Amino acid sequence: MRVKVSELKRLASKAIKYYGYDDKETKIILDILMYAQLRGNNQGIVKLIGKGIPKSGKAGKIKVLKQTKLSALLDGNQNMGMVVVTRAMEIALQKARQHGFAIVGTNNTCSSTGAIGYYADKIAKKGFIGLVFAGSPETVTTHGSYEALFGTNPLAVGIPSNKEPMVFDMATSAMAYFGLVQANTAGQKIPGDVAYDSKGKLTTDPAKAMEGAILPFDRNYKGAGLALIVEALCGPLVGGGFINYNNPRTNWGNLIIIIDPKLLVSKNTFKQNITKLINRVKRAKKQPRVKEIFVPGERGNKLTQKRLRSGWIEAENNLYRQLKKVAEA
Amino acid sequence: MRVKVSELKRLASKAIKYYGYDDKETKIILDILMYAQLRGNNQGIVKLIGKGIPKSGKAGKIKVLKQTKLSALLDGNQNMGMVVVTRAMEIALQKARQHGFAIVGTNNTCSSTGAIGYYADKIAKKGFIGLVFAGSPETVTTHGSYEALFGTNPLAVGIPSNKEPMVFDMATSAMAYFGLVQANTAGQKIPGDVAYDSKGKLTTDPAKAMEGAILPFDRNYKGAGLALIVEALCGPLVGGGFINYNNPRTNWGNLIIIIDPKLLVSKNTFKQNITKLINRVKRAKKQPRVKEIFVPGERGNKLTQKRLRSGWIEAENNLYRQLKKVAEA
Repeated sequence: MRVKVSELKRLASKAIKYYGYDDKETKIILDILMYAQLRGNNQGIVKLIGKGIPKSGKAGKIKVLKQTKLSALLDGNQNMGMVVVTRAMEIALQKARQHGFAIVGTNNTCSSTGAIGYYADKIAKKGFIGLVFAGSPETVTTHGSYEALFGTNPLAVGIPSNKEPMVFDMATSAMAYFGLVQANTAGQKIPGDVAYDSKGKLTTDPAKAMEGAILPFDRNYKGAGLALIVEALCGPLVGGGFINYNNPRTNWGNLIIIIDPKLLVSKNTFKQNITKLINRVKRAKKQPRVKEIFVPGERGNKLTQKRLRSGWIEAENNLYRQLKKVAEA
Repeated sequence: MRVKVSELKRLASKAIKYYGYDDKETKIILDILMYAQLRGNNQGIVKLIGKGIPKSGKAGKIKVLKQTKLSALLDGNQNMGMVVVTRAMEIALQKARQHGFAIVGTNNTCSSTGAIGYYADKIAKKGFIGLVFAGSPETVTTHGSYEALFGTNPLAVGIPSNKEPMVFDMATSAMAYFGLVQANTAGQKIPGDVAYDSKGKLTTDPAKAMEGAILPFDRNYKGAGLALIVEALCGPLVGGGFINYNNPRTNWGNLIIIIDPKLLVSKNTFKQNITKLINRVKRAKKQPRVKEIFVPGERGNKLTQKRLRSGWIEAENNLYRQLKKVAEA
């Protein structure tokens, strides 16, 4: 079915409030969920149905544990991941404006940060290079093993250009954990090369995969290495959990790094050259049946713009119905 | 055949001098080549045979184009890539010691930086997190294309632990360009899924692949995205060439980023937790026929230590013979 974007936002906003968030938090969460929803990223409105995102009863004030001119470490104090990382981003932007660089980590949260491309995009729109990393409990194995060790450990990089920023946002796993949950709920199989069961056999059964482990995205050692690096950045570097140390279930870590390109080159030249780079990649010779070559983030931007222009968005009947139920509860 | 490590070093040192480098440059290049050679990385002594690494007649003084408390941009002035990136690393280390962070870029070189894990390893051994990126002219395609656009664009990350650092060093391409050259010289085929010919067909012929393009390492869009990000960091961000802008053939760019973990957590806790992380990954349940799980850099470290302990190293007869010829020329 088709829904008005404004109506979807209204319902989503009510649903977020239903889960216990105040106006300011609701605005933040809504913005991040709509970013994902509008661009066809699966970290959107779907987060508001099923178990949803109830605010933790343990949530207290976000605390600054450590701070230098270039850095800060935040204790998320069991607040919603998106709210905590947004705070981290704001602090990082402030420091980067002053010094050209900032690094801000967060720990002690246990809920989703949403599509981390959102933060990279925001940072890049201010003219900075943004690197964002997110940790979560162990669901992904390493090369040579079949045991769940790492989170799905996404990384995102935002790079400003003269038009839309280039925003690269990838999980280091072959599938999102949420993909397993969705397939399981829908009674669907998963592809044969994305997950092991608990005995180390490749499985197409999402329920068995949830007891086993997801593979690194390239099913190989480079992907496993990248997943491990993100684990190090979102665990040890920020006081977050990692594998089974430091309470990984309730202590997810996140990291934001901001670099001002003017530390090295002029901001305008940088943006111009990134624009040239993007345009050149888009002009590359295409393989048969490839209609257009997209740079990271571009496909989602186009879909977003199209939906915002028309004011309408496609939504699964089921998703819409359930969202409405929560919003009107 | 087996050669004394000391003898290989002596010959390599003479060969480097034969190519026109002074004592200081020779020491730098030798150290980087031996790092690769001892750990079984293919960016070692083999660089000294065939065309070798003659010092450019155009090489002048390395110049600092821009400098802030946190950053520097170097004009490599056609010096050897390894010499220029070593200088960049030294400057970055100095700044990181003072401020906890440094970013140093280089442009205007056109020769190999060697195994960039070398620099990441050095940085991590000083207790810092090191990120290293290296650009080179277009040999790698993007997702949906078969045209050579990006360099093989390696990235390396070094992370300190209580023992050896964890050093992750990967090309974002499915094969090193040098792998094509080697296969072509040896009259060997390449695997069927690493390169296109100039018409966009997968090829096992290295000569055809050299006229075509190498695939991203995962043969997919995530690898292509990472290759593009490295292209942006080693091109536009440092005034280096990219695709066919800014003289990519003679203007390779490189980037070093150093982060002191103590910006966020105590250095000791960080190292201890990285050590725990490494040990835990090594204890992961193994797949059948997997004897040991290695963390990034570990296999190379073990091989290096074994060779240094015994004082002997295996070397191809042909490599040794040709190296000797250059050294004694």
